[in-house]
Amino acid sequence: MSIVTLITDFGTADGYVGEMKGEILTRTPSSLVVDVTHDIAPGDISAASWTLSRIVQRFPRGTVHVCVVDPGVGGRRVPIAARLEDWWYVGPDNGLLSRAAKRVGVAEAWILEPAKMGLHSPSGTFHGRDIFAPAAALLAGGAEATSLGTRTEPGRLVSVDVSEPVRTGERVRGEVVHIDRFGNIVTDVPAVWLTPSALVEIAGWEISGIRATYSSVQSGEMVALVGSGMTLEVAVRDGSAAEQLGITRGETVRVRPERN
Amino acid sequence: MSIVTLITDFGTADGYVGEMKGEILTRTPSSLVVDVTHDIAPGDISAASWTLSRIVQRFPRGTVHVCVVDPGVGGRRVPIAARLEDWWYVGPDNGLLSRAAKRVGVAEAWILEPAKMGLHSPSGTFHGRDIFAPAAALLAGGAEATSLGTRTEPGRLVSVDVSEPVRTGERVRGEVVHIDRFGNIVTDVPAVWLTPSALVEIAGWEISGIRATYSSVQSGEMVALVGSGMTLEVAVRDGSAAEQLGITRGETVRVRPERN
Amino acid sequence: MSIVTLITDFGTADGYVGEMKGEILTRTPSSLVVDVTHDIAPGDISAASWTLSRIVQRFPRGTVHVCVVDPGVGGRRVPIAARLEDWWYVGPDNGLLSRAAKRVGVAEAWILEPAKMGLHSPSGTFHGRDIFAPAAALLAGGAEATSLGTRTEPGRLVSVDVSEPVRTGERVRGEVVHIDRFGNIVTDVPAVWLTPSALVEIAGWEISGIRATYSSVQSGEMVALVGSGMTLEVAVRDGSAAEQLGITRGETVRVRPERN
Repeated sequence: MSIVTLITDFGTADGYVGEMKGEILTRTPSSLVVDVTHDIAPGDISAASWTLSRIVQRFPRGTVHVCVVDPGVGGRRVPIAARLEDWWYVGPDNGLLSRAAKRVGVAEAWILEPAKMGLHSPSGTFHGRDIFAPAAALLAGGAEATSLGTRTEPGRLVSVDVSEPVRTGERVRGEVVHIDRFGNIVTDVPAVWLTPSALVEIAGWEISGIRATYSSVQSGEMVALVGSGMTLEVAVRDGSAAEQLGITRGETVRVRPERN
Repeated sequence: MSIVTLITDFGTADGYVGEMKGEILTRTPSSLVVDVTHDIAPGDISAASWTLSRIVQRFPRGTVHVCVVDPGVGGRRVPIAARLEDWWYVGPDNGLLSRAAKRVGVAEAWILEPAKMGLHSPSGTFHGRDIFAPAAALLAGGAEATSLGTRTEPGRLVSVDVSEPVRTGERVRGEVVHIDRFGNIVTDVPAVWLTPSALVEIAGWEISGIRATYSSVQSGEMVALVGSGMTLEVAVRDGSAAEQLGITRGETVRVRPERN
Repeated sequence: MSIVTLITDFGTADGYVGEMKGEILTRTPSSLVVDVTHDIAPGDISAASWTLSRIVQRFPRGTVHVCVVDPGVGGRRVPIAARLEDWWYVGPDNGLLSRAAKRVGVAEAWILEPAKMGLHSPSGTFHGRDIFAPAAALLAGGAEATSLGTRTEPGRLVSVDVSEPVRTGERVRGEVVHIDRFGNIVTDVPAVWLTPSALVEIAGWEISGIRATYSSVQSGEMVALVGSGMTLEVAVRDGSAAEQLGITRGETVRVRPERN
């Protein structure tokens, strides 16, 4: 049984996700379709890229990750399949793969060709159903990538700027890469750059010390800690740090050793 | 492995969907339960009908589609199972099946009888769990329809008005049948009635020409195109056409050949 | 194939649920992961407890129910696995299990020990992925509970107050335990204490008689009935009773025989 995961910005009210699932199961009945999320904000390639990078290696090797956040559907961006070690990405070449590619590396990349896959008139508006679902089903069914399209160089794939935290001496500058449902502020500052006594500066606030858990502070208090993605997070226990700080993605965060 | 899909207006916060899944898997452990949507607006039979009509044939033959948008639960409307070619519908006879029936045709129809299925005291408030889930599980497990209830004539099923676009000479009048998550306006005007140079009139706006993709226009511009359901759609690239036009389902759309 | 269900307050926008699914499927590829709900309000242990109690026995025996509404993650509350007849609960020992335990009874309970499960550095912020998902995968794969941790007495588990309706003579006092998506008001008053002619008092309203279905009244009218959980419910047909009465969970409801 081969796993096909879905990351989309389709929401679940319209049935578009159902159409994709139907296509996959019709073409490869033995596939196991797994919902990761359909609630990416419409067109938010960056959020989808972050989500993909977190889950790509969590699934069994051989899993096909289908990602459809595709505001340029039908335009010049090309549909691709890319292999990252033993996991496949199927989706648009619009930068969605960037974070996962940076983390895992792209071993091979293919430009999908509908005709080669036996798809004779895919719509120009719903490649998720008409190109990506069939391609994923083929891969999940054991097809060789060469039957899906034409090989390209991984280096030629579209790459969007993935934030890059900077360390200068003992000082670190990073940025907020995600705000989650709980209002937790996820940054790109790696845990290995943090010391227990570090001072975190964000949006004019200072938080002293890096804790291990949300429970290290009282309800309503702000806490800096190492999040589950092994990067610096800022949270408010039983509250929303993002709301309290009034910040959004892209905000700068600074970390320095505490001396006083 | 037999597929059972779910279309409901239950949302996912209450666990009602979980109760249905439990019933299905307890009765037929080999079934594969697939979420299509639980986010139909409460009681919106029309939206559920539209969603069903789009997915019914996308799944493998033999799939059982369970649809529970059922404001009249426990009242006079009857629970049914209906076969459309090789796909089954299980749900209330309240018109939800109308669009799919019009598209595919109903080959046979059955009024579900709880006692015949061995269900001795179904609740009067949750037929999704107590009648439709068991019926779907039985069908998915290979039961004959005759063991579920009593046969009825397809022509006796409740039919709700399904919009019917009209063509008079070269002019077409249709209506908006769905607004999707992206604010795209889906109409019932079939693609085969459209020409590349057609003029679309909707809510006092005129859009000239039918394009192939959202990407045919600049960001923020309005575009008329053939949507993934092979009907006329009106969209705003990277925006919401429904919001910009201030329209809802049922709005009239007109198409005429452009002459000037 | 062993079933693992998920009840969380993670929402579906962040991909955290995807990380859990990946962990489960990587460790026990034959498991069937079933979404019950991810839309519990953040930290609402009571709602999760109610949902769990409704679904726990609906699934096939052997099912593992993973529940992660865990505001105290990483703090003093311990991670547990508990067997209720033939169903497993895996999650925090924070009272989430209380309602199900009261209904079904806990046959055995275990404090999960990451090291015993071969988990060497679980995060302090995401036990759903790092402790509960692996534990569930092990149980779904047939592991003995003794390989997960240390046995404890069911009586030592955290118990949160579960509402307890009271009957005094012919009068009943209960409370609202859930408001569902439709605005239906679910109480804890058992159906067996209700008579068809009973008078229900709630938030200053009086509703006369217990009906069998929502359809027993006209659209817009209020109705008291036996809900699908076999307790008293108050609803407004085609409307929201909770909104009309302006009430929330915890509100008192009284029932008395109607005499006049």
